[in-house]
Amino acid sequence: MTLDSRVAALDGLLEDAGLDAVLATKDASIAYFTGFWGLQMERFFGVAVKRGGGGALLAPTLDREGVGAAPTGLDKTLYNAARSNGLPELFETFDGARRIGVEEDHLNFARAKALTEAGYELVPATELIMHLRAAKDREEVEAVRRACSHIIAAYEDLWAELRPGVTEAEANARAAYLLARRGATHSEPHILFGNHAADSHGSPGARALRDGEVVCADISAQFDGYWGDMTRCAHAGPVSDWAGRAWEVVHEAYVAAVAATRAGNTARDVDAAQRAIVEAHPEIGACLHGAGHAIGTEIHEPPFLIPSSDAVLREGMIFTIEPGIYNSEIGGIRLEDDVLVGPELLSEYPLELRVLG
Amino acid sequence: MTLDSRVAALDGLLEDAGLDAVLATKDASIAYFTGFWGLQMERFFGVAVKRGGGGALLAPTLDREGVGAAPTGLDKTLYNAARSNGLPELFETFDGARRIGVEEDHLNFARAKALTEAGYELVPATELIMHLRAAKDREEVEAVRRACSHIIAAYEDLWAELRPGVTEAEANARAAYLLARRGATHSEPHILFGNHAADSHGSPGARALRDGEVVCADISAQFDGYWGDMTRCAHAGPVSDWAGRAWEVVHEAYVAAVAATRAGNTARDVDAAQRAIVEAHPEIGACLHGAGHAIGTEIHEPPFLIPSSDAVLREGMIFTIEPGIYNSEIGGIRLEDDVLVGPELLSEYPLELRVLG
Repeated sequence: MTLDSRVAALDGLLEDAGLDAVLATKDASIAYFTGFWGLQMERFFGVAVKRGGGGALLAPTLDREGVGAAPTGLDKTLYNAARSNGLPELFETFDGARRIGVEEDHLNFARAKALTEAGYELVPATELIMHLRAAKDREEVEAVRRACSHIIAAYEDLWAELRPGVTEAEANARAAYLLARRGATHSEPHILFGNHAADSHGSPGARALRDGEVVCADISAQFDGYWGDMTRCAHAGPVSDWAGRAWEVVHEAYVAAVAATRAGNTARDVDAAQRAIVEAHPEIGACLHGAGHAIGTEIHEPPFLIPSSDAVLREGMIFTIEPGIYNSEIGGIRLEDDVLVGPELLSEYPLELRVLG
Repeated sequence: MTLDSRVAALDGLLEDAGLDAVLATKDASIAYFTGFWGLQMERFFGVAVKRGGGGALLAPTLDREGVGAAPTGLDKTLYNAARSNGLPELFETFDGARRIGVEEDHLNFARAKALTEAGYELVPATELIMHLRAAKDREEVEAVRRACSHIIAAYEDLWAELRPGVTEAEANARAAYLLARRGATHSEPHILFGNHAADSHGSPGARALRDGEVVCADISAQFDGYWGDMTRCAHAGPVSDWAGRAWEVVHEAYVAAVAATRAGNTARDVDAAQRAIVEAHPEIGACLHGAGHAIGTEIHEPPFLIPSSDAVLREGMIFTIEPGIYNSEIGGIRLEDDVLVGPELLSEYPLELRVLG
């Protein structure tokens, strides 16, 4: 699907949604519609698409090179950030449009207020945009598969190098380096040791791996605009009873959730498949999160595979499936793959609890 | 200044601001008030501070370990993200408060809408929070200085290793690796070659350094919560006429802007000091951005040193001073240091246009 046909597809949804225009502001949405990846910081970036055709990619002058090279048929409007916040230029682009769909989980309150005060009616449109972004075409599926193949290469290096004594900071630095050398534009390795791995959002630190500890290695990276996101676990020295049992439970939950990643199932169904199994083992640890999330040009995209979501899985959607079990005293075990609704595994790599050394 | 005295200082501003409470949602603001660094993604995190005392750090259960360890005297409220979006728990914390200050450049439209529909009146309060965050105490100044010392070490390695033939991807990967090994929690090296350096937001790629090209090496990294952000330039082989003249102009602009980083001056004054010099040389290249930005727990903080800002510089504020000149055909030259209002340089390292090899 070409970039401009994505814009046309969005335009085609506007009449039914009762919108005059849509304003996409997320980096990943802007890239999805125009091929341009910005660096937003405090400055305004957006793609305005008007019903019946027309619209623009808006960005500060500072990004003129990247905008100039963007392979989009939309107008390109640069504003001077030294003198404008970009909104006057946006209003000119809207030219008569009044009911505007916005990415309600991204547009900030200040800009929303300025738009409202200028007379625009803002309507949440994340679902509308994600309806398009969620269904990946074959090229996008292959891009996620390629990102995963780079991550798999990083695992091979990690397992070859990781031994007791290596610090979390060093292991994560190496993984990020290997991914960046392979061309990753962003990476988020999250490799944690021992009971620190029970805190799946913990910051890698000066802690060194000790014999008898688990390693929970969550590695995600973006290549050519698309993310891969995987988790595998290892053990320093002979596998402990806890780690072995935790892995078995998580593996069972993983198999159930992958099998549930079928068109027609809801997000809740996929989560329930893993949750029932993990929550049946409180003596091993806690179930702290849902089954996963969609992935593509963003590392975390809706729909999220959680109990409160009745989003229906459609063909072309890609999800991380990542059940885990966590015990604050001992550690955390998680298995994560990227799965095209089918299910079709995009990240084939042994699931085994790797024994290091 | 302790974390809890920061909360008390915020509380002390609420009566004059006519606010019942403040909700801080930026990662950096949450960390500033509580010591907790979250990983927000799609989930809600916040610090609610009520007038007259009380409030809470709110986060999903997934982050229970980090929240538990946070050295804050505020209540800690965890919500189960599988079943709640965190807002019911926030409303309970507000308990009677109605006029709420929010970070208008961060709170998203969906959450703002939910708060408004629940009867809260939202008032922009970024300036109020930044009034506190902007004036760094001695410990914070030293933290920025330490971050810069790590970046300086990365430059030493970069200049020792960088030679024609090395790709941008490799140079950036090495810099990120060296910083991560030294304990950086985040880093954003942005090292670009030749005319690609004219696009200061360009993505490092497979392009290899060629003899006769400039290198514009912008390196930023966060250590112990605080960012440093520097830029130095180099040249592969004998310095070209353009590069030499561009460096002279930028150096002159840098000296003028650093000198203008004095209490009582406005952001506009500092920008004008560099802009007058850079814009006087259109034959060399364009002035594409302001003089810099405040820096601290965030890499880019307000105030921004741009023509449209009349923010007044106060003691304790730290700014990047980073004039640059850009020519799409040839390259870009920028010099960037971190300067405490005084001025006091926090990143002492030779400014020279380094000749490689």
